[in-house]
Amino acid sequence: MRKALVIGALLMSTATVGAPPPKDTGRQRARELGVSPGIFKPGTHNALTDVSGVRVGHATLISGDTVRTGVTAILPHEGNAYLERVPAAIHVANGFGKLVGSTQVNELGELESPILLTCTLCVWKAADALVEWMLEQPGMKDVRSLNPVVGETNDGRLNAIRTRPVGAKEVRAALASATSGPVAEGSVGAGTGTVAFGWKGGIGTSSRVLPRRLGGWTVGVLVQSNYGGVLQVMGAPVGQALGRYAFKQDIEAERGDGSIIIVVATDAPITHRNLRRLAERAVLGLGRTGSSASNGSGDYVIAFSTAPQVRHAWTAEQLKGEELGNDALSPLFQAVVEATEEAIYNSLFMATPMSGNGQTVEALPLDRVRDVLVRHGIGQAPGAAGGSDGGVK
Amino acid sequence: MRKALVIGALLMSTATVGAPPPKDTGRQRARELGVSPGIFKPGTHNALTDVSGVRVGHATLISGDTVRTGVTAILPHEGNAYLERVPAAIHVANGFGKLVGSTQVNELGELESPILLTCTLCVWKAADALVEWMLEQPGMKDVRSLNPVVGETNDGRLNAIRTRPVGAKEVRAALASATSGPVAEGSVGAGTGTVAFGWKGGIGTSSRVLPRRLGGWTVGVLVQSNYGGVLQVMGAPVGQALGRYAFKQDIEAERGDGSIIIVVATDAPITHRNLRRLAERAVLGLGRTGSSASNGSGDYVIAFSTAPQVRHAWTAEQLKGEELGNDALSPLFQAVVEATEEAIYNSLFMATPMSGNGQTVEALPLDRVRDVLVRHGIGQAPGAAGGSDGGVK
Amino acid sequence: MRKALVIGALLMSTATVGAPPPKDTGRQRARELGVSPGIFKPGTHNALTDVSGVRVGHATLISGDTVRTGVTAILPHEGNAYLERVPAAIHVANGFGKLVGSTQVNELGELESPILLTCTLCVWKAADALVEWMLEQPGMKDVRSLNPVVGETNDGRLNAIRTRPVGAKEVRAALASATSGPVAEGSVGAGTGTVAFGWKGGIGTSSRVLPRRLGGWTVGVLVQSNYGGVLQVMGAPVGQALGRYAFKQDIEAERGDGSIIIVVATDAPITHRNLRRLAERAVLGLGRTGSSASNGSGDYVIAFSTAPQVRHAWTAEQLKGEELGNDALSPLFQAVVEATEEAIYNSLFMATPMSGNGQTVEALPLDRVRDVLVRHGIGQAPGAAGGSDGGVK
Amino acid sequence: MRKALVIGALLMSTATVGAPPPKDTGRQRARELGVSPGIFKPGTHNALTDVSGVRVGHATLISGDTVRTGVTAILPHEGNAYLERVPAAIHVANGFGKLVGSTQVNELGELESPILLTCTLCVWKAADALVEWMLEQPGMKDVRSLNPVVGETNDGRLNAIRTRPVGAKEVRAALASATSGPVAEGSVGAGTGTVAFGWKGGIGTSSRVLPRRLGGWTVGVLVQSNYGGVLQVMGAPVGQALGRYAFKQDIEAERGDGSIIIVVATDAPITHRNLRRLAERAVLGLGRTGSSASNGSGDYVIAFSTAPQVRHAWTAEQLKGEELGNDALSPLFQAVVEATEEAIYNSLFMATPMSGNGQTVEALPLDRVRDVLVRHGIGQAPGAAGGSDGGVK
Repeated sequence: MRKALVIGALLMSTATVGAPPPKDTGRQRARELGVSPGIFKPGTHNALTDVSGVRVGHATLISGDTVRTGVTAILPHEGNAYLERVPAAIHVANGFGKLVGSTQVNELGELESPILLTCTLCVWKAADALVEWMLEQPGMKDVRSLNPVVGETNDGRLNAIRTRPVGAKEVRAALASATSGPVAEGSVGAGTGTVAFGWKGGIGTSSRVLPRRLGGWTVGVLVQSNYGGVLQVMGAPVGQALGRYAFKQDIEAERGDGSIIIVVATDAPITHRNLRRLAERAVLGLGRTGSSASNGSGDYVIAFSTAPQVRHAWTAEQLKGEELGNDALSPLFQAVVEATEEAIYNSLFMATPMSGNGQTVEALPLDRVRDVLVRHGIGQAPGAAGGSDGGVK
Repeated sequence: MRKALVIGALLMSTATVGAPPPKDTGRQRARELGVSPGIFKPGTHNALTDVSGVRVGHATLISGDTVRTGVTAILPHEGNAYLERVPAAIHVANGFGKLVGSTQVNELGELESPILLTCTLCVWKAADALVEWMLEQPGMKDVRSLNPVVGETNDGRLNAIRTRPVGAKEVRAALASATSGPVAEGSVGAGTGTVAFGWKGGIGTSSRVLPRRLGGWTVGVLVQSNYGGVLQVMGAPVGQALGRYAFKQDIEAERGDGSIIIVVATDAPITHRNLRRLAERAVLGLGRTGSSASNGSGDYVIAFSTAPQVRHAWTAEQLKGEELGNDALSPLFQAVVEATEEAIYNSLFMATPMSGNGQTVEALPLDRVRDVLVRHGIGQAPGAAGGSDGGVK
Repeated sequence: MRKALVIGALLMSTATVGAPPPKDTGRQRARELGVSPGIFKPGTHNALTDVSGVRVGHATLISGDTVRTGVTAILPHEGNAYLERVPAAIHVANGFGKLVGSTQVNELGELESPILLTCTLCVWKAADALVEWMLEQPGMKDVRSLNPVVGETNDGRLNAIRTRPVGAKEVRAALASATSGPVAEGSVGAGTGTVAFGWKGGIGTSSRVLPRRLGGWTVGVLVQSNYGGVLQVMGAPVGQALGRYAFKQDIEAERGDGSIIIVVATDAPITHRNLRRLAERAVLGLGRTGSSASNGSGDYVIAFSTAPQVRHAWTAEQLKGEELGNDALSPLFQAVVEATEEAIYNSLFMATPMSGNGQTVEALPLDRVRDVLVRHGIGQAPGAAGGSDGGVK
Repeated sequence: MRKALVIGALLMSTATVGAPPPKDTGRQRARELGVSPGIFKPGTHNALTDVSGVRVGHATLISGDTVRTGVTAILPHEGNAYLERVPAAIHVANGFGKLVGSTQVNELGELESPILLTCTLCVWKAADALVEWMLEQPGMKDVRSLNPVVGETNDGRLNAIRTRPVGAKEVRAALASATSGPVAEGSVGAGTGTVAFGWKGGIGTSSRVLPRRLGGWTVGVLVQSNYGGVLQVMGAPVGQALGRYAFKQDIEAERGDGSIIIVVATDAPITHRNLRRLAERAVLGLGRTGSSASNGSGDYVIAFSTAPQVRHAWTAEQLKGEELGNDALSPLFQAVVEATEEAIYNSLFMATPMSGNGQTVEALPLDRVRDVLVRHGIGQAPGAAGGSDGGVK
C-alpha cells in the first residue's frame, strides 16, 4: 500500500517553507543572477508576503509514480476573510480555465475567502474543502452562502490529474501552514507539477515598494506558472538560445499552451475598480517574459487590497473607503508589472526537476541561462551594461 | 437510520417527470389560467425541450427533516457534450452567485458539458461529480481538461445547505433521467427547496416558436426560481394584492433577495456574440415578473444553440458557422423575453408547498391569484379584456 | 429664406420648460391617468431634478419641413462638471448606438462633462460644441483633455438626419436653459423627433424617494424614448389592443427598432461599481414597458451620484468616498426600475404629434389607452382593482 | 497671413508616403538596426498594408507655430466599408481616451467605416467629417445611421489642441491619399505631434506572416504612439541608459502618461470573439516596450479581419462565416505581439524631431540607442548574440 505524502502544515514549516531555500537544490532566485527587472526596489522578502498581513501556505502532494500536485493558499489578512472583507477584483486575461468564484468577486468588489491555487481538475474538490473549513471557523455558524476563490493550472503532464487527487487534507494543510515571511518557490504546493516554457515551472513571488514620494505602498505578486511561449529574461532570448520555444518547427504541437494564475496584493487603499486596473497591468509583466497568451492558456489575475480603511465587516452598511485617486495608480501599475515579471522568473529559476506520470521535466538550466544573460548584458555589475542609473528611490 | 430519498433516474421517469403533472397536486401551469404573455406561440410542450435534442432530468433529494434540495440536468443534445460542442454564452445579470464555468464558456464561446443546477453550497461537489461522470464516457480517456457548468440558487431556508448534501448519486440520477418531452416543474430537482417572492418557487419552463416569416426558430427557457421582488403576473399586482412583497414595511428584512438561473436554448444558428445578446434579453422577461435584481440575487443566464451548422467536433480546426445576421435576432429577442416570463410563472404556479428545516413555505395560492388576474383583465376569453388580436402567427 | 427655430435658452425658460405643461396640449402625465408603477413614491416634481442640484435644459430645433430634432442637456450639479466630478457609470444594454464618452467614464468611474442627448448623426458636432463651451468656462484654460458624454437616438423618420442639423447654437441653448424644478416632457429637446412603439415618443422623466427606513435617498430618471416592441402599460396590452406592435403580420418590417437613452441620478453615496449595477437595473424597467431590446435598438444607461462625499475635485489625490455597502443598494434598485418604467410612460403620454420630412407621427391616443387601462384594472380608485395596500412609505 | 499646410492626398503620394523613407531624415526602421523581435517573419513591407486590401493614408497638418497634428486613415478594403462590412472588435486596455464608435463595433461585431486616428480634442470634428464623406459615397443615399470609428492620442504638448484644428479638409485628404504598399512612419499624419517615452513618437507599423504549417496568415499592426513608461528595446534598458523614463526622481511629474492606439488587421478568417482576443494580445507587445499603461494612458486596440468569407454585405440576413477554430489562434496571438512591439519601435525610430507650441521634442537618438543595443547583444550578426536559431519558417 502506497501512502500519499502531504507536505504541509508542520512539515512545511520546517522543511520547505521559508527562504533562503535549502542550498542543496542548486537553485537561485532570479535576482541572485542579476535579473532585477524594472526601476523600483523589492520589499524585505521580495515576496507577496511583503504586503503586511498576507500569509502564504503550501501543501505539496507527491504520491506513488503518478501524483505530483498540491495546493497553495493565500490568506489576505490575519483574521477571518469572510467576516472581515478586503476589496478585490479578478481580471480574466484568457478565460480558458476553471477558476472558481470570479463573478461574485467582481460584482460585490470583495473577497470573502482565502485564495487557493491547485490543479485543473482539482478545483471543485478544493473549493468544497475550503468551504467546509470556513464553515467550521468561529463566527460562521449562520453563514449559508460563501464564495470560495480557487484558481488552477493544468499539471496533467506530471500528475494523474483525472483522479483529482487533491482533497480536504491537502487544503487544510495548506491553510494551516500559511505564514508571513519568506515564501517557498518552485516545485512546491500548487507548483509541484507545473511546466512553463518547456521547463519545470511552479510558484514564484516578488514585490516592489514604491518610493515615499510616490506613496510608499507595497505591491506583492505570487504566480503559479504553467504556461509557454518564447521565453525571454529581461529581453534576453533564453528560449531561442536554448532551442526550446513555442511554434518551433521540430517541436510537435507545441503551442505555448498552459496557464498562469497571478495573485496581486497591495497595501494601497484602493477598491474594486482600481484593483481591476491593477490586475490588468500584471498581464504586461506576463508579456515581458515571452507569453503571447496562447489559446489554451487560462490566464487570470486576482488582486486585493489589505489597507484597513477599505476593509469592512461583512455586516457593514456604510463603507469608509478613503481611497487613492486614479492618478496615484500609475506607480502602482509600474510596480505590479515589475513584480509579476520577476515572480515568473523566480518560479522558473527556483523550480527543481520533477518526474511523474512516466515523464520527467527538467529545471531551467541556470548555468546556460547565465551565459545567455551575460551575452545580453544582464547580470553584470550594476549599471555596467545597462547604463542603468541604479533605479528609483 | 434515515435514508435519503433520491428521486431520479427510473423513479422520475414514471413518477414526476412528464406532463401533464399529476392531477392531485392541484397545481396548474400559468397558461391554464389564461396567463400567456407575449405575441408568439409556445412549442409542443411549452418547454425547453421543444428545442430539438435538448434533454432535461431531475434528481429530487428529500431526506429526514432537513434536506430539501436536488439537481436538474440540461443536456444540449443527444451526444457527448464535450466531443460535440455547441456555441454558448453566459450573461451575468447580477454576479452574487457561485455559478461554475462562466469564464471559459465566454472565452471559447462554447459549452463542453451538460449544465447542472443545484443548491448554492452544493455546486462544487456537483461539478466534481459531473466531471467524474464525463471522464467515464466513451471517447474521453485522454481528456485532462474539462469545464463543467453548474448554476445554483440558495435553498438554505428549507434545506440544510451547510451540509452540502448533493453528491455524485444525485448528479448521476439527474443525468440518467434526462429526457426530451414534457419537463416536470415546481418543487422538483434543483427547485425542490427554492422560494420565490415569498412562496414556493422551483423549476419552470416555457418556449416560443417564431412564425415562419420570422425564421420559424424555437426558443426554450428553463428557470430555477428562488428570487424576490414585487410579484406581478402580466402586470397584475399579485404581490401587493396578496400582501407579500419586498420592502413591505412589516416584513422584516425582506429585500427581494434570492437568485435565479435561466437556461436558454434555441435551434437558431447563432454563435457566442449573439447568444450573449439573447441571454441578456432574458433579463427583460425577468423584470416583467417584478424583479429588480436585488443585491443578494445571483442572476445568471446561460444560452446555447443546438443548430447543427454551428456545432463542431472538439478537434475541429475550421468551423463552418453559417449563422444568422444581427438583424434576424430581433424576433428571437422577443421570444426569449416571453418564454422567460412564462417559465417563471410556471415555476410558481406548479410549485407544491414544502416543509423542511423547521419551516414551511406555501405554494402561491392559485385561487386568489385568479381573482387578481380577473380584476386585471387577464385570463378571460381570448381577446376580450386585452383587446388582443390573438397573437402573431 | 427659412429660418431655423431654436427654442432654448430664454425662450424655453418661459415657453416650454417647466411643469405642469401647457394645458392646451391635451396631454397628461401617466400618473394623472392612474399609472403609478411600483411601491415607492415619487419626489416633488416626479422628475430627474428631484435629485438635488441636477438641472435639465432643452433646445428644440424645428426648421422648415424637414428638421425636427433638438438637444437635451443634463448637468449633474450647479458647478463646473469638469472641475468637480461626480462618480458615474455607463451600462451598454444594446450597443447599436453612437453614444460618445463611454470608455473613459467606465475606466475612471466619473463624469467630467454635462450629458447631452441629441439625434444620431448629430452626436459628434454636439460633442465638439460641448467641448468648446466647456473650454471657455472659468478655470479651464489649461485643460487639454476632456471627455464629453453625448447620447442619441435616431429621429431620422421625422428629421433630415443626414444634414446633421444640430450645432453649437442648440447645444449652448440647451445648456443655458438648464434649470432645476419641473422638466418639459414629450416632443421637446432631444425628443422633438423621436418615435416610440409607433407613436410619438420623446423626453420623459420620473423619480422615487425611498422611505427613511430604507435610506431616504432619491433616484431620478430621464429618458429619450425612440424604441419599439409590444407596448404594455403596467402590463395592460396597449400595443395589441391598439393594433400596433412589433412583429405584427401586416406591419412591414416593423422590428421594434429604435433606441432609448436612460439617464439616472441619485443622491445616494455610491460610486462606479454600484452605479453600474444601478444602471443595469434600469433595463428591468425598460422591459416592463414591452421592449425586447431589438437588434437595432441602441439602449444605454448613464448613472451618476450627486452625493457630496463621493464627489471630488479633479485634482484630488485622495478620495473620501464614504459610500453605501452593497446590501443597501436593493431598495435603490427597486426605485430605478419603477422610475424608469414611469419615465417611459411619461415620454409617450406627454408627447404631442409631429410632422416632418413628409411624415406624421401621431401621439399615443390617451382616451383609447384609458379604456385599455380600465379593462385591466389600472387607474381606478387607489387599492380598488389591484388590491394594492397603497404602497410603501 | 499664415496658411495651414495640409500634406495629404496628392502631396503625400509623392512626398512622404512610401518606403523607404527619404534618406535625409537620418532615421531608420528598427529592423535596420537589428531590432527584429520574435520568431516570425514580416511581410513584404513590414506594414499593416501587408494584409491584402488594407490601405493607409495620412494628412499632416502643420500650421504656424502652434498646429502640429494630423489624421491617419485606415481603410479595411478597396470597397465601401459600410456596404461591405468586415468583422471587428475593439479592446479597451485603458479607457482614458475619447475613442469614438466602440460600443457598436463590439455589439454588432463589425466595422462599418474606415478608421481614423487624430488628436484628442479633434475626434468629434473628424468623426463628423468622416460621416459627411461617407454619406456622399455611391450607394449611401438612404443611410441614416453610421458608426464612425475615430481614435486619438493627445498631442497637446506640440499642438494647440484646444483649437481642435482638424476638420473636413484633413479628413478627406487622409482618406484620399490612402494606398496599399509602404506606409509613411514617424512624425506624419496622426503622429505629427505625438511624444513617446519623452522622445518624438508617431506612426509605426509592422507585420508578420505565419509559416504555412501554422496557417500562412498575415497579421499587420499600425500604432499611433504617444505614451510613456520605461523604454526598453527587446529588453535593452534604453530609457534608463539614456536617463529618461517615467517616475525618475528628477523628472517632475513624469508619470508615463499619454496614450496609444493600435490597429490590427489580419487576413485570417476570424470574427468578433476571436478578434477581441487578438486585440487583447497586442497589449502584451505594448508591455514589452516598457509600458505599464499608466492611469493617463488611453490604450485601445482595434482589430479587424479582411478574409472574404467573414465579410458580408450590410443587408445580409445569413452569414457564411467559415472561420478558424479557437486553437488555430495561438500563432496569430504570437504574431500580433511581435508586430505590435516592432511597430512601436518603428514609430520611435522613424520619428523626426518636431517643434511647436513653444516646445521642441527630440527624436530618439539612434546612435546612442545602437550603443545600448550592442551592449545588450542586439543588432549583431544574426544568431551571434542571442544564439537565436534564426526564427521560425
